[in-house]
Amino acid sequence: MDGVEAGDVFLADCPARLAVEVIADKWAVVVLWGLNDRARRHSELIELIGGISKKVLTQTLRRLQLNGLVERHDYGGVPPRVEYALTDLGRTLMVPIRLLTEWAEENGEAVLTAQEGG
Amino acid sequence: MDGVEAGDVFLADCPARLAVEVIADKWAVVVLWGLNDRARRHSELIELIGGISKKVLTQTLRRLQLNGLVERHDYGGVPPRVEYALTDLGRTLMVPIRLLTEWAEENGEAVLTAQEGG
Repeated sequence: MDGVEAGDVFLADCPARLAVEVIADKWAVVVLWGLNDRARRHSELIELIGGISKKVLTQTLRRLQLNGLVERHDYGGVPPRVEYALTDLGRTLMVPIRLLTEWAEENGEAVLTAQEGG
Repeated sequence: MDGVEAGDVFLADCPARLAVEVIADKWAVVVLWGLNDRARRHSELIELIGGISKKVLTQTLRRLQLNGLVERHDYGGVPPRVEYALTDLGRTLMVPIRLLTEWAEENGEAVLTAQEGG
């Protein structure tokens, strides 16, 4: 994409926009961030993330796997041990996500105020 | 939030996560980016953004207004002239969005490959 500004990928119907859609879902970013420091089990993620149901977490993890951002590792055993981890591709998202979290921390209250008609 | 890492805002049920939900919708980021350089009419945004319907654009703009990220300016006249512009709050999102677009440009193909089972 020589001569095209990075931001312009949003504004045409191109593969890069698909990548944005991949992460622009309510839980994807939250779940990815939950895997930032290490692999985790489904039950660990449920504890870590407030307000997500088991079913929604399962669906989100499946979508993230489909998009190549998360890997499922089945270590077998009794009881079975299954963990989810970021792929290399998933890890590349951590920097933009960190910036978004910083934005959210700084501006979350302002958004709430706007929503309340303030 | 002293002593809490910025990233941790995702992982509890707190106001900052709401801010993330605000922008984690398929079209919000795209529309915000379309207003990056200047105010635009509804019809301009339709032309600029591939694949968005008039109705979805209207809904997205309304949601962005509700969240304090976009302002609607009605200049009256015949025919009426209505433009949409970023608010100061909306403008603060441009840096994280730029980073996301750069990520998308670099990794969009990899996501597509994963989706295709590559």
